[in-house]
Amino acid sequence: MTASTQLLHGVVPPLLTPFNEDYSVDIDTLKRQAERLIKAGVHGLFVLGSSGEVAFLTREQRKEVIATVAEQARGRVPVVAGVIDMTTPRVIEHIEDAVALGVQGLVATAPFYVRTHDVEIAEHFRLLHEAAPETPIYAYNIPVSVHSVLDISTLISLAKEGVLAGVKDSGGNDGYTRALISARDKAGVKNFVVLTGSETTVDFAYLAGADGVVPGLGNVDPVSYVKLHELLVDGAYAEAAELQSKICDLFTIVGVGDGTRMGGSSQGLGSFKAALHHLGVFPSGLMSRPHVALNDEELAKIHEIVDAAQVIEP
Amino acid sequence: MTASTQLLHGVVPPLLTPFNEDYSVDIDTLKRQAERLIKAGVHGLFVLGSSGEVAFLTREQRKEVIATVAEQARGRVPVVAGVIDMTTPRVIEHIEDAVALGVQGLVATAPFYVRTHDVEIAEHFRLLHEAAPETPIYAYNIPVSVHSVLDISTLISLAKEGVLAGVKDSGGNDGYTRALISARDKAGVKNFVVLTGSETTVDFAYLAGADGVVPGLGNVDPVSYVKLHELLVDGAYAEAAELQSKICDLFTIVGVGDGTRMGGSSQGLGSFKAALHHLGVFPSGLMSRPHVALNDEELAKIHEIVDAAQVIEP
Amino acid sequence: MTASTQLLHGVVPPLLTPFNEDYSVDIDTLKRQAERLIKAGVHGLFVLGSSGEVAFLTREQRKEVIATVAEQARGRVPVVAGVIDMTTPRVIEHIEDAVALGVQGLVATAPFYVRTHDVEIAEHFRLLHEAAPETPIYAYNIPVSVHSVLDISTLISLAKEGVLAGVKDSGGNDGYTRALISARDKAGVKNFVVLTGSETTVDFAYLAGADGVVPGLGNVDPVSYVKLHELLVDGAYAEAAELQSKICDLFTIVGVGDGTRMGGSSQGLGSFKAALHHLGVFPSGLMSRPHVALNDEELAKIHEIVDAAQVIEP
Amino acid sequence: MTASTQLLHGVVPPLLTPFNEDYSVDIDTLKRQAERLIKAGVHGLFVLGSSGEVAFLTREQRKEVIATVAEQARGRVPVVAGVIDMTTPRVIEHIEDAVALGVQGLVATAPFYVRTHDVEIAEHFRLLHEAAPETPIYAYNIPVSVHSVLDISTLISLAKEGVLAGVKDSGGNDGYTRALISARDKAGVKNFVVLTGSETTVDFAYLAGADGVVPGLGNVDPVSYVKLHELLVDGAYAEAAELQSKICDLFTIVGVGDGTRMGGSSQGLGSFKAALHHLGVFPSGLMSRPHVALNDEELAKIHEIVDAAQVIEP
Repeated sequence: MTASTQLLHGVVPPLLTPFNEDYSVDIDTLKRQAERLIKAGVHGLFVLGSSGEVAFLTREQRKEVIATVAEQARGRVPVVAGVIDMTTPRVIEHIEDAVALGVQGLVATAPFYVRTHDVEIAEHFRLLHEAAPETPIYAYNIPVSVHSVLDISTLISLAKEGVLAGVKDSGGNDGYTRALISARDKAGVKNFVVLTGSETTVDFAYLAGADGVVPGLGNVDPVSYVKLHELLVDGAYAEAAELQSKICDLFTIVGVGDGTRMGGSSQGLGSFKAALHHLGVFPSGLMSRPHVALNDEELAKIHEIVDAAQVIEP
Repeated sequence: MTASTQLLHGVVPPLLTPFNEDYSVDIDTLKRQAERLIKAGVHGLFVLGSSGEVAFLTREQRKEVIATVAEQARGRVPVVAGVIDMTTPRVIEHIEDAVALGVQGLVATAPFYVRTHDVEIAEHFRLLHEAAPETPIYAYNIPVSVHSVLDISTLISLAKEGVLAGVKDSGGNDGYTRALISARDKAGVKNFVVLTGSETTVDFAYLAGADGVVPGLGNVDPVSYVKLHELLVDGAYAEAAELQSKICDLFTIVGVGDGTRMGGSSQGLGSFKAALHHLGVFPSGLMSRPHVALNDEELAKIHEIVDAAQVIEP
Repeated sequence: MTASTQLLHGVVPPLLTPFNEDYSVDIDTLKRQAERLIKAGVHGLFVLGSSGEVAFLTREQRKEVIATVAEQARGRVPVVAGVIDMTTPRVIEHIEDAVALGVQGLVATAPFYVRTHDVEIAEHFRLLHEAAPETPIYAYNIPVSVHSVLDISTLISLAKEGVLAGVKDSGGNDGYTRALISARDKAGVKNFVVLTGSETTVDFAYLAGADGVVPGLGNVDPVSYVKLHELLVDGAYAEAAELQSKICDLFTIVGVGDGTRMGGSSQGLGSFKAALHHLGVFPSGLMSRPHVALNDEELAKIHEIVDAAQVIEP
Repeated sequence: MTASTQLLHGVVPPLLTPFNEDYSVDIDTLKRQAERLIKAGVHGLFVLGSSGEVAFLTREQRKEVIATVAEQARGRVPVVAGVIDMTTPRVIEHIEDAVALGVQGLVATAPFYVRTHDVEIAEHFRLLHEAAPETPIYAYNIPVSVHSVLDISTLISLAKEGVLAGVKDSGGNDGYTRALISARDKAGVKNFVVLTGSETTVDFAYLAGADGVVPGLGNVDPVSYVKLHELLVDGAYAEAAELQSKICDLFTIVGVGDGTRMGGSSQGLGSFKAALHHLGVFPSGLMSRPHVALNDEELAKIHEIVDAAQVIEP
């Protein structure tokens, strides 16, 4: 297995995308954050996920983000890129961009906006694989955005065919994660990894045999996630659960923004960016438009929670 | 009011996008179909809607479609273009393309894929209007794709601000359509049109005061929709309902495709394209990937329904 | 066809259930309201529907309501009773009660609370019919409560078998109503009626061939609904649409209650009962527990809307 | 704390309700199963849950079930009863029945069928508590049936007020379970237990601090669940996860029934009852009407899975 086909494992944070005041990508901050995460010991970097505001970035901006982080990583950790778009032909364009920039993996959802079917979803992933046969493709299960759940038996079939290298599971259902891992193991599939996207139940996923985690909150506190990973790999579940519980306290920042005047994306990303601003990592908490900014009262509450968490800088 | 700001009304079919065998846009057929619709007496052409497989087209292909239809229309009817993408910055790119190509209107949805909020949706439309202050923008209510319903009071506020010129309502709830029209009338808003996207309840929408209809099935049988419009404008509701009922019989083609092996998009678009192929308008019924093709048995059933409908060629 | 098997048609209001201060059924007011509706010219009375708070009434209270209204009606109009419960065996108990009290029809939903299937729903209705072979059974399509939509081809099959005498469609989708009527007509089924439960689109339903309407708001303004019915039967659609529009203005009372402190049932029923209290028909607007009462400000707003509507007393 | 107010913990199977051929409750088998579970070492018995077909039982049958199991238990383990009905007044009737029969706890959902609100749900539970101030009430979070999720802060408030003694969480979201436990602990609430209803993620729930489990599959294999509980209490998480994984293999019986001809209830309960029939515990696998029976092929597959699991008889 060559470097480019080594599969993801461990802590792979989905990088937030910092912006300048004119909504261009803040390249310097992005580099600094990539470096900070690598220094914390993360095992990979995932750019252009939902946490990276991929849905808000133009094609040019997406390329900029990949190029920046790939260059900063310099092969120290694998860099995988989200290629999120509505349907196959559009996703393939992003794949071409990402492969040209040398990523070590691709993360793609099922088609969305259109009414689709498992048969079509399977064909979709096959076509993506044809477009990049040398690059591992991870299916992204994220029903809150895509409004369908990836079918486990379809995923296992695609794994057997060599189409998929794994799944990033942000479905919020740990029983599904376990069932997926179990189905993989029973099928005897190798080279197929399962990573949870749930910040608050990493211990559950590892207990069920997950290979890693893609935590948005890992942008804020990567050290704790790396520590959590290590405890879990060592089988220190009780201790891990305790650390997980502390991480969950920090995660409550995502609920601070007032849901009567902003959507879930503004609440969640806003809180992560506010925390990084408060920690001095990001020069601002600016989100792309039309996100709603957190107000002073909300920011104060978030700062309080972040301070209480005593986040360790890498 | 200049030509470019005349608002839509009447029958405005959302053009299907025909493909060549290599999935490039079949320009000749697209022109021929645009001409066929104009000849049938439609009042406008809507390119790059859901029926136009906009979700499957790359940015370049989208530009090609607009240019082709705009050129064919030669100002005889207004051409409006869908600018469908996940969020504001990406939609604005499509707006810039469409405006440069001289469209007479734009059709945009709320943000999707991301978790959003009415406040953010309103801001989204304001930013789109800023990007094209001279071109009417129609909000596209299509919860089956976007997974949120446009809030009526938000729409009326945006109408008053001059941000929106109308709504294309594909929400499938005729009570909502009536409530929207009523809210508009009570607010005394001028220059704000409501078009239904429902092929099967045009008479209901007109009875409630709708200004027009955007029927996907109008690609197949534009003459009947124009006739239906005329009956309704004349207040011949009972006769209109009878014609509507016949149109509904033709519409049953969308249910022929087997839902256990394909999604709703393959069923619906597949049937429209199969009908146009059968009528000799399209050289094939090819859909973009990963749509599933209808099989021979399904095609035979569709042909039977189309034949029974005795579609009049314009 | 005997009196007991004459099918419903026209305006059939779902009677609200008035309560005394101790939450017992206010028999006198219930009688007075039944009489008021009959005087207004309604064509039938539907007790124990969702508007009748059937979900909140004990078995004994339900019997009391049926007995009261049946006695008051004295055969002048048919009385049909909701037999709403989770599953077949429990619904059958209510059927036995209702049949013993001499109702002219029964209204039953699909099973709810449990995860079910069309095959099971069909069997459910067959078993209900076995339990009351002489009494017409109307299927109640109310997905907002039952969380499934009755399948049209299943309904037509049951109609052909003689199991169902009709449908009360509160699905909020007028295209579905039309498709159901059309399927009935194509199948040549006789003795199967379709009544819409939508207060705001009666004209649409009649235009599509509906046999009647079951309007919750008809409790407040029965005279207007009877007038609307007559206009529609006469084919005066434009005039009917105008009246429908005025009725819709009155219907806005259901949106006055503050959704941040009460549920939709409190908003809707609360407004109907408040209107009837304001009109002097009900001695209070009390709802069963745990409904939330409207506050003074909300009541004032409702009174204003009711006054503006100039409701004609029968 | 008196015996009657000792809270649930550990393994508390929701008893299936066996039927005679005439759909009356099979009292002898019910007793035998209760005894079998007690012998296996379960810590409590929960009658009239969803697994007990509570939605299909008449009020009289419900009383019969409670009386039978309470008598059989003879105080050896606490018996708690589901009091599942649409709304407060109807639930209170079931509470009165259950309390009269001497249960040690009550399990109630939020109102369903009606559109409700957190404020109303809180009031609902307060009224239930008023109706049985001496009997612990457990809130039943089961969105698949009730179509709403119990709000965590509302639950904690009710715990503080002494209204609720705990939650049975069948929400299928282990992150929610953790958040609920964490909120309880942070609030310093005593005498409030959290039991998971998930058969397949008991280890996750215990790792997060859950007090017990209510496993439908525990009807089939109580010994394994008791063993799982013991391992988890001992902190042997890795070993527990292995046992959990074996239990998950047995749990696949719920997916054997063909979803194109039966609903989820028929699939799930049908498989449990078929397994118990195969194990010689139940004289038949009969479910209440209108459930669809599993066919021979499906039964054979279930028997195979059950045989492979080598279920240990208590």
